[in-house]
Amino acid sequence: MGMADIKDEAIDALFRQLVRDAEQGGYRLNPDMAFTKALVRGLLVNKGRYGYMSCPCRLSTGKKEDDLDLICPCDYRDSDLSEYGACYCALYVSEDIFKGLKKVRPVPERRLPETSAADGGAGITTANIMANATTGFSLKYPVWRCKVCGYLCARDEPPGICPVCKAGKERFERFI
Amino acid sequence: MGMADIKDEAIDALFRQLVRDAEQGGYRLNPDMAFTKALVRGLLVNKGRYGYMSCPCRLSTGKKEDDLDLICPCDYRDSDLSEYGACYCALYVSEDIFKGLKKVRPVPERRLPETSAADGGAGITTANIMANATTGFSLKYPVWRCKVCGYLCARDEPPGICPVCKAGKERFERFI
Amino acid sequence: MGMADIKDEAIDALFRQLVRDAEQGGYRLNPDMAFTKALVRGLLVNKGRYGYMSCPCRLSTGKKEDDLDLICPCDYRDSDLSEYGACYCALYVSEDIFKGLKKVRPVPERRLPETSAADGGAGITTANIMANATTGFSLKYPVWRCKVCGYLCARDEPPGICPVCKAGKERFERFI
Repeated sequence: MGMADIKDEAIDALFRQLVRDAEQGGYRLNPDMAFTKALVRGLLVNKGRYGYMSCPCRLSTGKKEDDLDLICPCDYRDSDLSEYGACYCALYVSEDIFKGLKKVRPVPERRLPETSAADGGAGITTANIMANATTGFSLKYPVWRCKVCGYLCARDEPPGICPVCKAGKERFERFI
Repeated sequence: MGMADIKDEAIDALFRQLVRDAEQGGYRLNPDMAFTKALVRGLLVNKGRYGYMSCPCRLSTGKKEDDLDLICPCDYRDSDLSEYGACYCALYVSEDIFKGLKKVRPVPERRLPETSAADGGAGITTANIMANATTGFSLKYPVWRCKVCGYLCARDEPPGICPVCKAGKERFERFI
Repeated sequence: MGMADIKDEAIDALFRQLVRDAEQGGYRLNPDMAFTKALVRGLLVNKGRYGYMSCPCRLSTGKKEDDLDLICPCDYRDSDLSEYGACYCALYVSEDIFKGLKKVRPVPERRLPETSAADGGAGITTANIMANATTGFSLKYPVWRCKVCGYLCARDEPPGICPVCKAGKERFERFI
């Protein structure tokens, strides 16, 4: 299936769903509508080609188990949002970029060529085997706690916005 | 209060609320509208009868503390969705059944007759006392982590869709 | 910026956003519309004055790092909702108060004068250093598990409603 086979209605429908899901979870799509719709079209092309919506800016193998980490939103989105203010494609952007306070800059590829979905890329992209003096056990990621509502998540850094109560990143504390 | 006393407007209002809640949380109601509305009516009948919306397909005692695990959504919904693609009533169904790719099949009663809300049924329905070599402590359920957004939840299996970022079940990893 | 400088449209827009965020997370704004809009106006006044929406019912220092725990929703909202059915301002209220089944009563100041955002107030407001016999490690808050969907959160008491599946507070169990 080529680019030309994707109908505008399908792009609009997926775009609306992505906006809704993003906003419910405290995420933002790139406000450059033409740019974003081109990426959404790419997602639909990949859906037709592979059967799943892998990243429109990367090369998929077509073998789902090897591409799991590339299915959008990819496993690297949130680390890239934290570090660069945008995901690799710039489909998802930070609140500052969404509001026009900052500009998108290039995001280097966080996934190494040999990364497969088997280890989710996590072992490679982050120094995430933690020994915690307080708890005496090891976890792959730190656990963050929203000081407002108690939401817990395990990732390199807290999310930009709490998905439950929408408190900002600075309201999170390290919990484990 | 009998079946005839429930107004269509009340059914429609509760139906809309359940759809909204379900979609926000990554769940799906049965797409067979007549069937689903009959169950919603049953929830309202129970609400009038007992003061809480216990499962329309099971017999409630009318003593809230004994029926807590049967208040819809019941404590068994998610395990039944994982194993059978539908809850006991088939009010909630899997994405595959929602899309018509699979059919609803009978769901056996997961709750044993002597189960009361006191133990949430958990001690009986699952082998869920875990000894974890890595962490050295025991928890009643495994903790799952969404590899995309870091969402954590404790249940027998990961949810069908991450309630925060909507990533699929296959994007979850065992965290603890 | 004085009270008079806040436009009604800005109040309405923020009010709608707060309602949406509250409902998605299982929270409720005070149903007394005039009262609530006055508080929303106060939030916008603080936003103009300090650059962040600190609590309209408390005195902010204007130094963001000292006021973090007062940015609305404040770090004390959920504890006050659990104990008193309303936050300090009564902007957020319990389901019972929202439905008119209970009335708002005065909520004492939970934040001590010397509390700064550095410790989030947590060390002072709650006896929250826990030693847990089962797990053998200490956490600042207990971890609660929704028995319906497995949602985990760390706070003094479970939330009034599960933000993921909307199950009530009585459906939560202590997990860690």
